[in-house]
Amino acid sequence: MNQDYEKLQMYLDKQAALGAALTLLEWDNETLAPEKAMDNTARCVGILSEELYRCLVNEEVPGLLKKLGQAEDLTEIQAAVVRVLSKELAKIERISAKEQREFSELLSKSGMMWQKAKAEDDFALFAPYLEQVVAAIRKHNRYQLEGDNGDGTGSLYDVSLNEYEEGFGRKELDTFFAELKETIVPLLGRIQSSQKKMDTDFMHRKYDVEKQKQFNRWLAEYLGFDFSKGVMGESEHPFTTNLHNRDVRITTHYYEDNLISGIFSTIHETGHALYEMNVPDELTLTPVGGGASCGMHESQSRMLENMIGRSREFWEPVFGKLQETFPEQLCDVDLEQFVQAVNCVVPDLIRTESDELTYCLHIMVRYEAEKKLIEEEYPVSELPKLWNELYQEYLGVTPDSDKDGVLQDVHWSGGMFGYFPSYALGNAFAAQLYNKMKQEMDVPQLLRSGQIGQIINWLKEHVHCYGAAKPAGEILKLATGEEFCPAYYVQYLKEKYTKLYELN
Amino acid sequence: MNQDYEKLQMYLDKQAALGAALTLLEWDNETLAPEKAMDNTARCVGILSEELYRCLVNEEVPGLLKKLGQAEDLTEIQAAVVRVLSKELAKIERISAKEQREFSELLSKSGMMWQKAKAEDDFALFAPYLEQVVAAIRKHNRYQLEGDNGDGTGSLYDVSLNEYEEGFGRKELDTFFAELKETIVPLLGRIQSSQKKMDTDFMHRKYDVEKQKQFNRWLAEYLGFDFSKGVMGESEHPFTTNLHNRDVRITTHYYEDNLISGIFSTIHETGHALYEMNVPDELTLTPVGGGASCGMHESQSRMLENMIGRSREFWEPVFGKLQETFPEQLCDVDLEQFVQAVNCVVPDLIRTESDELTYCLHIMVRYEAEKKLIEEEYPVSELPKLWNELYQEYLGVTPDSDKDGVLQDVHWSGGMFGYFPSYALGNAFAAQLYNKMKQEMDVPQLLRSGQIGQIINWLKEHVHCYGAAKPAGEILKLATGEEFCPAYYVQYLKEKYTKLYELN
Repeated sequence: MNQDYEKLQMYLDKQAALGAALTLLEWDNETLAPEKAMDNTARCVGILSEELYRCLVNEEVPGLLKKLGQAEDLTEIQAAVVRVLSKELAKIERISAKEQREFSELLSKSGMMWQKAKAEDDFALFAPYLEQVVAAIRKHNRYQLEGDNGDGTGSLYDVSLNEYEEGFGRKELDTFFAELKETIVPLLGRIQSSQKKMDTDFMHRKYDVEKQKQFNRWLAEYLGFDFSKGVMGESEHPFTTNLHNRDVRITTHYYEDNLISGIFSTIHETGHALYEMNVPDELTLTPVGGGASCGMHESQSRMLENMIGRSREFWEPVFGKLQETFPEQLCDVDLEQFVQAVNCVVPDLIRTESDELTYCLHIMVRYEAEKKLIEEEYPVSELPKLWNELYQEYLGVTPDSDKDGVLQDVHWSGGMFGYFPSYALGNAFAAQLYNKMKQEMDVPQLLRSGQIGQIINWLKEHVHCYGAAKPAGEILKLATGEEFCPAYYVQYLKEKYTKLYELN
Repeated sequence: MNQDYEKLQMYLDKQAALGAALTLLEWDNETLAPEKAMDNTARCVGILSEELYRCLVNEEVPGLLKKLGQAEDLTEIQAAVVRVLSKELAKIERISAKEQREFSELLSKSGMMWQKAKAEDDFALFAPYLEQVVAAIRKHNRYQLEGDNGDGTGSLYDVSLNEYEEGFGRKELDTFFAELKETIVPLLGRIQSSQKKMDTDFMHRKYDVEKQKQFNRWLAEYLGFDFSKGVMGESEHPFTTNLHNRDVRITTHYYEDNLISGIFSTIHETGHALYEMNVPDELTLTPVGGGASCGMHESQSRMLENMIGRSREFWEPVFGKLQETFPEQLCDVDLEQFVQAVNCVVPDLIRTESDELTYCLHIMVRYEAEKKLIEEEYPVSELPKLWNELYQEYLGVTPDSDKDGVLQDVHWSGGMFGYFPSYALGNAFAAQLYNKMKQEMDVPQLLRSGQIGQIINWLKEHVHCYGAAKPAGEILKLATGEEFCPAYYVQYLKEKYTKLYELN
């Protein structure tokens, strides 16, 4: 083995172990830890996070990575590890330890103030913190533009965007979103003026939570979730996390008065989970042992949730089981009604509760706002006004309060700028992959006959198997034979909703 | 602050954080982690354990501890930290990193082989590993005898014993156990030939596990377990663990056909938990942030389980709640019958299922066996024979199989020699403390009126408040005004069982 890589290995091992421990601490915090544990546990998390940071930023690793970047005797995986770590290092190495600590503290305060501001519906409480977070992100991004490979010029927001999705800066996203907007907005108009109305009342009858749990557990297993390598829990906001490929954890949230919220959370998170479970053993617990990118991860959860999970074919062999679980509540509902209800389009204010069609419009609002904040030093105090105007323009609705408007998402309080677009890209990646998959096998027939394993297997062979050892764009090209092409998603939406709402 | 201590602080922080992470990983492994996670997670645990080891054994800390051992400007807590760490270091510093790694691997294999041997009831599978473990312990103990403060002579088993309970070597324990044996064995004989028979059949009716859970949760809270600072779960073998004083976790195991197994596990573990919850904030997450010793910890769990939890007074205000939970199963059982049943003496083979009176006899068997193994190089192959003879001598029963005999406990496979006696010492510490407490307040009356909080508070003020900042012996003396005195325990047993079995 390359001797420099051997030296690096010690840091990689430590990084993997600390990463797994921090993942578990976070999972536990969301699902089980007692209320008053927070302060003491946060102290431990802070110390371990600093240790994790020092696995990369120290006296030895930057030099090793530089040398290894030139090495020619690395395996493919080793080269990928060096590439990923070098990128990560470039992102943080100019941020001093002091700045890093101050930033962590700022994020911690800003997170708490966001919660308070949301609870009290008072944007002014959050605004000064958001201003500081934006300023810090701009400063960090400027470091990168001034770094080894830069000349100090370039777009500050592109730095944020590339952090989450390599190769997708403003140029690519402006084009992508323009195309989406051109399709969705008129389509939405036609749907809203159509005569077709869907009955969704039955979804809000009383559904026993214990029975929901049983059904959702069964459903996750049906989709391929392997309970010998995973755990299913509950938390306020559903999420997926993993210690490694043999310990993958999802959560769902159940509501007694909402049957499908839990179901589609389970399907969505199972999509993420299958990705992580299928990462090969030789990649797990390495820096390339997770999904390739946020967008690629979302492509897996959204394909399962929307393209597959909201299709008639999927429910053909499954709906009976659901009826069996809730015989009283669903005795007067048939498959057709059910499928229509889970695809009902209602433009609304809250992203996480949005339907499939209008989802990307929510993202576009955030994208436009982020561009202004990071690129143009747009005043934070004006943000609620901008937000409401954009919602009116894109979705035709205006929030009554900031709580249901600009304060709804946690991301900005945590410094996550540039993340939202990956949700939309995920949809488009998914459509492109799904299109290819359908050319290679009879997907509707597989779904109808309950053979979903073959579909997951296709994803495993074409996406999951690479972990993050290749960039998302390359995986997409290897899987579909094409560069990223948003037309598949546009086409998918048009076809689906034209048919569903009988718009012809 | 002392400058050397300031330097030490960095290592202490890291040690605390790694310790908390490892605790959570272990808890999770016992309660939730998926079956196939083990290998990958064990790799991470191994790496983190090595990091933890290096917080103490490195180029800086041994020197700092040496200097700090002489320093006169330390606070009481700082001095206690230095004392505890110096003792820990002395234990491991002569073991080379290579030996340490080999020992960990040996323990891991020996643990697996013990499980297999127990499952297959085949001691020969385990014997070669046990031999190696004994040899390693003897070697490590010899290092300590040869260390800075030693001349190479002394008892190898005393080293093991002092590791778990400072100041309690063979001399002290031989005296203690002789006194106990002198009391218990004849007492047991009188009980066995008495006419008094207790009806325990009702405990094995069918008790719904969900209802047991509800009752046990209520019971833990009644005893003072604060669910805002703790978690209650389930595992194969009940245990208590904690990340710090505000995150204390207990488990219980429920059996549908055994009502009291879960109940007394809950009471026992709650005793441990209250100790950890009551450790002051300034001690938690330091090396003196836990209980003072194994024996002192057991004193808290055993006082709550046996002296309090099996008393008539305790059940007076509680039995009604239990009857309310299981009206059908307990309709023909009254308080008197219930209290008698939970105190029924039946000499049997399995330590963890033993009654209060014969419990220490199980410990004495292990103590005699350990003495021979560690001190006298007694051949491991002879161990089953020795075990069975000792059981016959002490308890009057002989195991049919090694599974129910020498293979029943996990401790030796994990290298824990010298641990068992602390279970017995815990009983004696408890009796001495309980005696003092009763002089200061009307304990039976407090129990009858459900005011158990005042009892726990006494323990908090006299035991819990010190954490491990003082040795157990010193805490005992501060609390009771006396040195350790086993007579209280002997007296307690005599009185209790004479009355219960009407032996006068």
